[in-house]
Amino acid sequence: MEALLQQSRTMCPFLKRTSPTTLRTLSTATRPSTSPGGGTMSNLQVLGRRCPVMSKALAVQSARLSGTKRFASRAAGVTGIQHMRFPTGKRELHTTGGHPASLASGGYEKNERGNPNLANPLRPSPATGHAGAAVRGPRPEAPTTKKFNYDDFYNVELEKKHKDKSYRYFNNINRLAKEFPRAHTASAEERVTVWCSNDYLGMGRNPQVLDSMHKTLDTYGAGAGGTRNISGHNQHAIALEDTLAKLHGKEAALVFSSCFVANDATLATLGSKMPDCVILSDSLNHASMIQGIRHSGAKKMVFKHNDMEDLEAKLASLPLGTPKIIAFESVYSMCGSIAPIEKICDLSDKYGAITFLDEVHAVGMYGPHGAGVAEHLDFDVYASQDTAFPQSTKGTVQDRIDIITGTLGKAYGCVGGYIAGSAAMVDTIRSLAPGFIFTTSLPPATMAGADAAIQYQSQQPRDRVLQQLHTRAVKTALNDLDIPVIPNPSHIVPLLVGDAELAKKASDKLLEEHGIYVQAINYPTVPRGEERLRITPTPGHVKHLREHLVQAVQAVWNDLGLKRTSDWKSQGGFVGVGVEGAEAANQPIWEDTQLGLQVNETLEGAVAREFNDAAVQAAVPLKAATPLTEKAYSGMNSTAGVVA
Amino acid sequence: MEALLQQSRTMCPFLKRTSPTTLRTLSTATRPSTSPGGGTMSNLQVLGRRCPVMSKALAVQSARLSGTKRFASRAAGVTGIQHMRFPTGKRELHTTGGHPASLASGGYEKNERGNPNLANPLRPSPATGHAGAAVRGPRPEAPTTKKFNYDDFYNVELEKKHKDKSYRYFNNINRLAKEFPRAHTASAEERVTVWCSNDYLGMGRNPQVLDSMHKTLDTYGAGAGGTRNISGHNQHAIALEDTLAKLHGKEAALVFSSCFVANDATLATLGSKMPDCVILSDSLNHASMIQGIRHSGAKKMVFKHNDMEDLEAKLASLPLGTPKIIAFESVYSMCGSIAPIEKICDLSDKYGAITFLDEVHAVGMYGPHGAGVAEHLDFDVYASQDTAFPQSTKGTVQDRIDIITGTLGKAYGCVGGYIAGSAAMVDTIRSLAPGFIFTTSLPPATMAGADAAIQYQSQQPRDRVLQQLHTRAVKTALNDLDIPVIPNPSHIVPLLVGDAELAKKASDKLLEEHGIYVQAINYPTVPRGEERLRITPTPGHVKHLREHLVQAVQAVWNDLGLKRTSDWKSQGGFVGVGVEGAEAANQPIWEDTQLGLQVNETLEGAVAREFNDAAVQAAVPLKAATPLTEKAYSGMNSTAGVVA
Repeated sequence: MEALLQQSRTMCPFLKRTSPTTLRTLSTATRPSTSPGGGTMSNLQVLGRRCPVMSKALAVQSARLSGTKRFASRAAGVTGIQHMRFPTGKRELHTTGGHPASLASGGYEKNERGNPNLANPLRPSPATGHAGAAVRGPRPEAPTTKKFNYDDFYNVELEKKHKDKSYRYFNNINRLAKEFPRAHTASAEERVTVWCSNDYLGMGRNPQVLDSMHKTLDTYGAGAGGTRNISGHNQHAIALEDTLAKLHGKEAALVFSSCFVANDATLATLGSKMPDCVILSDSLNHASMIQGIRHSGAKKMVFKHNDMEDLEAKLASLPLGTPKIIAFESVYSMCGSIAPIEKICDLSDKYGAITFLDEVHAVGMYGPHGAGVAEHLDFDVYASQDTAFPQSTKGTVQDRIDIITGTLGKAYGCVGGYIAGSAAMVDTIRSLAPGFIFTTSLPPATMAGADAAIQYQSQQPRDRVLQQLHTRAVKTALNDLDIPVIPNPSHIVPLLVGDAELAKKASDKLLEEHGIYVQAINYPTVPRGEERLRITPTPGHVKHLREHLVQAVQAVWNDLGLKRTSDWKSQGGFVGVGVEGAEAANQPIWEDTQLGLQVNETLEGAVAREFNDAAVQAAVPLKAATPLTEKAYSGMNSTAGVVA
Repeated sequence: MEALLQQSRTMCPFLKRTSPTTLRTLSTATRPSTSPGGGTMSNLQVLGRRCPVMSKALAVQSARLSGTKRFASRAAGVTGIQHMRFPTGKRELHTTGGHPASLASGGYEKNERGNPNLANPLRPSPATGHAGAAVRGPRPEAPTTKKFNYDDFYNVELEKKHKDKSYRYFNNINRLAKEFPRAHTASAEERVTVWCSNDYLGMGRNPQVLDSMHKTLDTYGAGAGGTRNISGHNQHAIALEDTLAKLHGKEAALVFSSCFVANDATLATLGSKMPDCVILSDSLNHASMIQGIRHSGAKKMVFKHNDMEDLEAKLASLPLGTPKIIAFESVYSMCGSIAPIEKICDLSDKYGAITFLDEVHAVGMYGPHGAGVAEHLDFDVYASQDTAFPQSTKGTVQDRIDIITGTLGKAYGCVGGYIAGSAAMVDTIRSLAPGFIFTTSLPPATMAGADAAIQYQSQQPRDRVLQQLHTRAVKTALNDLDIPVIPNPSHIVPLLVGDAELAKKASDKLLEEHGIYVQAINYPTVPRGEERLRITPTPGHVKHLREHLVQAVQAVWNDLGLKRTSDWKSQGGFVGVGVEGAEAANQPIWEDTQLGLQVNETLEGAVAREFNDAAVQAAVPLKAATPLTEKAYSGMNSTAGVVA
């Protein structure tokens, strides 16, 4: 095979300049649903069709294959095959001669004769058959190729990941409930400070959450024991879904194994069931939505990130009566940008679409009750309500959203995901989505813990306020040092590195030399060239931890000679870093007054005041959640243990 | 629209005899990847193409649409649209006149002129345009249709489920850890006995599992706080995956949110990445595998359930060098049949395929260490090893399987799923599968609990032995009463009802009148006409509970006049019930000697002996797991509380 490839290279300018790895990538990456047969087609085939030589060979192959297919079906009684892929150019190269056995007269011969363009230099004719492939008589025997080498396939796939630096090395990090936000590494003695967890509010160690889980574990056991339909439905599921519906002011909610599954299952179900549905998807949408849209088989239109003109142009290009789903996120987790939710609702109304809003990184974090950014946009309306959950939300942004999805595994500290919306919509997904129907439900204790977390956060804005104050403090300190923070109005602190290897090195140095855990974010989570460190402050990241972080980042930036904001600026700016006016355009969505910041009050002053308030109020309406004083946090996180 | 439909009905024999519901079903159910455009096509379109009138109309529409598409792209700068679906016949019926705006000359007109078969009685001509749809001038304006009615869509979908009796009503069942296998209903006072949980061994209440979970909760908190790559990787994941790899004698394992996700993600990844991959799928495979195969875009060949001739014919029809995955289950959960695993391995070797075995309903339940049916098939080899996990398994059936998938949510009593296999395969899935990469990892406590459950079961065959003894006892007692148990060699006790409404009635009566919870299994979990009650005994279903079940089933069968085995037999038998020789062909896979049954020992005698052994041994090598005596179980489950 290698010899044949070499030979082909001397003849073909494309093969000459294309590496075997690229060829493999091209031949394994497929474009679903682009082949006339309805099957998938590799990118190599797509290229092959543009080649004056291969396009003709492929046409002949195609005709030949349809003959083979008929034969195989008849001879072996095959009925289950659903679609046949066209053979790739690559496979043609690797075929060692011969044709499928005993082709019925008709298909192959007829097409061969009927096609005047038979010149295929890569397919051996009987007369010039190579490598001893005897092709005699009217119909040769089936080719005796080797079995597929599965191990080679795996190794090639992994090699690709190593080569482009996207291979992932997991860090063994054990977050300690009693020392939040600290963790131990593989060694139980070695401490690090976690600066990249999505347990944004430390609810994973909240005493009320843990208490609820302990009790439920003892009374109802470790697992649900079945799907929701078969013995896995219980009072915990009912209560949690009731709480979630109330949180978002919706008629109903439905819990899934994760929000990945919730997004995937919901979009796949709606997109495949609504006739001629079109899904309009923000270009930075999470993998779960991209997967759900792909799985739906619906038409997909990707609009530029947060670009309302582009979205409107796409909506306007579709008939009014066509069902459309606008799928987007409130907080985009890797850059921290926030969607113009209200404008999307306006467009949705105008063009007869429904909105599908992923609040995964926002629930617990925004709004007076922690319902997310949609609630936050009507802060005063919701804040004016005394009840645990809002009673009337008609006309608010949150009310206008058709489908909200969220997670129980980030700010709520547990695991699982959900959707919330109209009763009929939720019941439809409940009734139709395989990813919901055919899976074991979450354990009772998990659902009870999540319920406790939501209830707690709906009545306690303090954690989110502290989280925002800490975020502001970290962003300010890093900006002051010319460290390239990607500007955004949310709680995410992304530091631009712009190189996969350097990002990993920076992360490793922070961990090994400074006892600070910040995972490098590389492709495919962010586009190549936009690699970054993603920092997520929590209410537990008190002053000395923040100071330590900032010093460590400064040291690593110096050691590795990483680009500063001013460097990016001199290059014209990149992803918002060093871009004129980007800061001003990205004012925090938590406004000063919403945070309770007083005139001329410093951030550290507000933090101190907030901690004191917390300490005072912790004992009042709810049970003390955590000893929420700066001193208490400091005591737990003595600097002695910070550097391992 | 209704008027137009009425009018069309008088002309079209197909519309005349087809109900609106059926039309809706046909137009929303799509066949992916069968349209020439690569989009999906509704079943109604498929039918429409066979109609002498509509086929021509569709051809014209098709040509017209390609004109529209070009226009829309140019006018609105649309670049994101991926594929356009052909309008359905239904939409044509509902269009109230007019054509897409300002069609560029070319497409539409040219095709219209070029096609001599323009007679479409359903499309109004400009001259006969109805409902005031003025169609004048060279190019009409865009049609002003109504917005899509999403609520109607949901309600129609739900109505379909109600009409065909496949709408699911969840039962609020709260399984009580301290009263296993009892539960309370919506009322905390009302007790029922659960006879359909997949917590097959009661591990959800196992003290070692709960102890491990409590400790982990306190030390490491409620949730993982991130994906495996970003702060969610820890010692619990490492330990659990190590245990799973050892359990199955494989190099590596990988944990997912659920086995639904594990199956879906693994098959979708392998099927889409391996060039020209073909997946051979047992006709009774679980929804998760069906979904994974569909999502892979790979060619799929469905072989008849457990039919080796059919499988071999399909394998033989494919080139040897083509990568093939044979996807199947060990225990099929709704009928209890068991796959001929060894024969599938032989065929896999012969034809160069790999095996993908779902042991979801078998892990914990079969084999000396609870590794599943694959281990069970070499019972003596594995039983002869003293270590907690087998050291050498070369050449055994389990060793020959390439990919094993299992769950932590059934016999292991927790939640989550996994795959096990070669290090390279597992690393490939770890590196490529979005459903693994982009989701929060399972909570540390869940992983610790599952690990404890696997370790416990690997050293304690007693639970599986008792479970099997109870299964045999229940099957024997029901068969003696002519109750139609679907014959099978596993731990599942499926009772054939054969009607969706009756199955639900039987389930409701058992619950309401007898305090016994057995969920009815209806379409789509089983085919229509094969509706059943699915009973799953556990080690906790002691004698008086079993007797109560058998009496209750007998009463319900009498009350509802449900068919007996003899009734099915007189009709020639159905799904094994009343089929000559089906019993003999379905001897239990747990043989008498493997269960330790002594010569002439009765089942109840063996149960009593096993309980005593358990009571004696419980204190010895491991900590007492449960007070595993018949008396203890009886005490907890006094008959007084059985009927609510």
